[in-house]
Amino acid sequence: MFEFTVAYRQGLARVASFSTPRGAVTTPMFMPVGTQGTVKGISPQELLDIQSQMILGNTYHLMLRPGEKLVEAHGGLPGFTAYPGPFLTDSGGFQVMSLGHLRKITEEGVVFKSHLDGSMVALTPERSIQVQEALGADVIMAFDECPPFPAEREYIRSSLERTVRWLERCLNVKSKPEQALFAIVQGGIHEDLRELSLELTRPFETPGFAIGGLAVGESKAEMFPAVAFTAQRLPEDKPRYLMGVGHPDDLVAAIGLGVDMFDCVYPTRTGRFGYALTDDGRLNMNSSAPRTQLEPIDSECDCYACRHYTRAYLAHLLRAEEMLAPRMLSLHNLRYLHRLVERARAAIEAGTYYEWAAQWGQRFFKGQVPEWFTTALQTGQAAGQRL
Amino acid sequence: MFEFTVAYRQGLARVASFSTPRGAVTTPMFMPVGTQGTVKGISPQELLDIQSQMILGNTYHLMLRPGEKLVEAHGGLPGFTAYPGPFLTDSGGFQVMSLGHLRKITEEGVVFKSHLDGSMVALTPERSIQVQEALGADVIMAFDECPPFPAEREYIRSSLERTVRWLERCLNVKSKPEQALFAIVQGGIHEDLRELSLELTRPFETPGFAIGGLAVGESKAEMFPAVAFTAQRLPEDKPRYLMGVGHPDDLVAAIGLGVDMFDCVYPTRTGRFGYALTDDGRLNMNSSAPRTQLEPIDSECDCYACRHYTRAYLAHLLRAEEMLAPRMLSLHNLRYLHRLVERARAAIEAGTYYEWAAQWGQRFFKGQVPEWFTTALQTGQAAGQRL
Repeated sequence: MFEFTVAYRQGLARVASFSTPRGAVTTPMFMPVGTQGTVKGISPQELLDIQSQMILGNTYHLMLRPGEKLVEAHGGLPGFTAYPGPFLTDSGGFQVMSLGHLRKITEEGVVFKSHLDGSMVALTPERSIQVQEALGADVIMAFDECPPFPAEREYIRSSLERTVRWLERCLNVKSKPEQALFAIVQGGIHEDLRELSLELTRPFETPGFAIGGLAVGESKAEMFPAVAFTAQRLPEDKPRYLMGVGHPDDLVAAIGLGVDMFDCVYPTRTGRFGYALTDDGRLNMNSSAPRTQLEPIDSECDCYACRHYTRAYLAHLLRAEEMLAPRMLSLHNLRYLHRLVERARAAIEAGTYYEWAAQWGQRFFKGQVPEWFTTALQTGQAAGQRL
Repeated sequence: MFEFTVAYRQGLARVASFSTPRGAVTTPMFMPVGTQGTVKGISPQELLDIQSQMILGNTYHLMLRPGEKLVEAHGGLPGFTAYPGPFLTDSGGFQVMSLGHLRKITEEGVVFKSHLDGSMVALTPERSIQVQEALGADVIMAFDECPPFPAEREYIRSSLERTVRWLERCLNVKSKPEQALFAIVQGGIHEDLRELSLELTRPFETPGFAIGGLAVGESKAEMFPAVAFTAQRLPEDKPRYLMGVGHPDDLVAAIGLGVDMFDCVYPTRTGRFGYALTDDGRLNMNSSAPRTQLEPIDSECDCYACRHYTRAYLAHLLRAEEMLAPRMLSLHNLRYLHRLVERARAAIEAGTYYEWAAQWGQRFFKGQVPEWFTTALQTGQAAGQRL
């Protein structure tokens, strides 16, 4: 029985927890992405060390390679990947749109050409649940369509209505009570379409709700009003998951709007490209300055890289194209986001979230705080006072 | 004061130990290679976990990038790389030969074109020691010339005589008593030239001696008689280091001939290419069989990969080109060689080394034991009885 308990609130922001068969998680939280059955370059022990709580696995990638049956033969993702904690799997819908070629969407589902070998593959709500049950995550996602940005209003409307019918089919075939299925609200950046999606989706009373269809190309000034609108209209007593987000500033703003869960490849991808996340913004370790700096990336960070290495050493590894560089920068960036949500939770508990977030933004944006960020925090603080 | 203490002997094989400013090491031992200031893909914590004893750093690579001054500013290799144990640095001589372009060798030293930026760089005995003192390893190597294979006898002779003059120059400028300098015996695969090199080198009474100029392209049937000849003529009370070797079978044969120390990029390089070392030979994880095998690489291995992962999972990572694959295979292969020398030490202690080694060879070579291997073990066992 999935239970979500809110422990602290300030404005729309909240600290909460929910239990899974593989342990409890505390929100707000950020989930590292293990696309192909591994968080790129990072071991399960390291994920535990940096206090990851839940790992995301990608249904699309894993069904194509190695195939869900092999994962199931290992007892699901925990046995396959050796990460002993909770998992969440997405439904495959988003990757079909972004990676599948020649896709054809019908009421039945999606037929697409695999990006690996060009073979034709079908994904339906029923098949997505079947795969997700084999992968054995603790939280699974309804099969949805995520329209591209921009898309026609009419397309978004018909797509979100179909996504609701797909949700119903997912729930009909779902057979494992220990897995919590979250529904996904769509509607692009249009308030009326978000409202329609909410009205059609909420009645299913799933144990959690995701905000989908964002961070797909729109600006942050376009995205955050949609987050604010949707998050406030989702149930107070269920977790809210903003899919595919994000950057540190996204997390701080969205937590202020009442979002509880996040996932994104950003920390590991930008780490592989040589960038380190800090409170002062993103540090380019490929530039010349770090090559002679004998301090860690972040003296307040407790990750392995910051406890052991200077910027000069890491910059050397990058120049020398040594594998330890992307590994350590990925580890640091994940830990940075975990520490960021830990600090957010502490501020919410202390009733100082919006002040903390505004100060954090001043430093992160070097004084040039964008309007979308300030507006998001003001909205979250003011709306909370009206609740 | 460098002290080498032999604890057990059987035949020419021995278990011994020596102390360094950063801790004691027990031989026979294998040193992971940290070419550019990192054992590729492996963290210092992992090196400790797999019970590495001493890490090799490359003078040639580190002097070119990032430059020895930056390493020195970190307090030497331990501060730079965060590996807290003993280090050994080579002299740069071997890499100048194998990587430097347009090299010119004179009595003074070597001038070569950097493989990184094409700039002209000089390396002399004095400069090699200067760099190695800045890098701060516990054991440093004399600057030598390693002739290619094949080379003219006359060239090998004049080269080894110059190497002895370079050894004298190294000792003359060496200024840090806490660093132990090992001399290197050359002579190719010619017994008379090895004898000459030994006669000229032994009088310097350095705290250890390396066997250089092997594993450079000659066959194992050519190499091992040279190892046998040289090792037996090196002092009993000093460590013997066979440079750039090797494969598991090389270690088992050379330990039987009284060699104490080894280094090689083989375990990490073959791991990056998808191969796993086992007692049954080298397992090709790129082949189809491992993709469905739910057992570890080696059920007797205690490395992280073998304790957590199936062959099927690792084979999946390889196919998916995930960084965790080369990382885990490198870790396993290093641990395999460390376990191999641990088992060799236990067998020497028990007085069963040559029996154990013969049995190990039967399995490793799948019954087709090559003559060089059997001969090496017989030589080591018989010569020991004559001692």
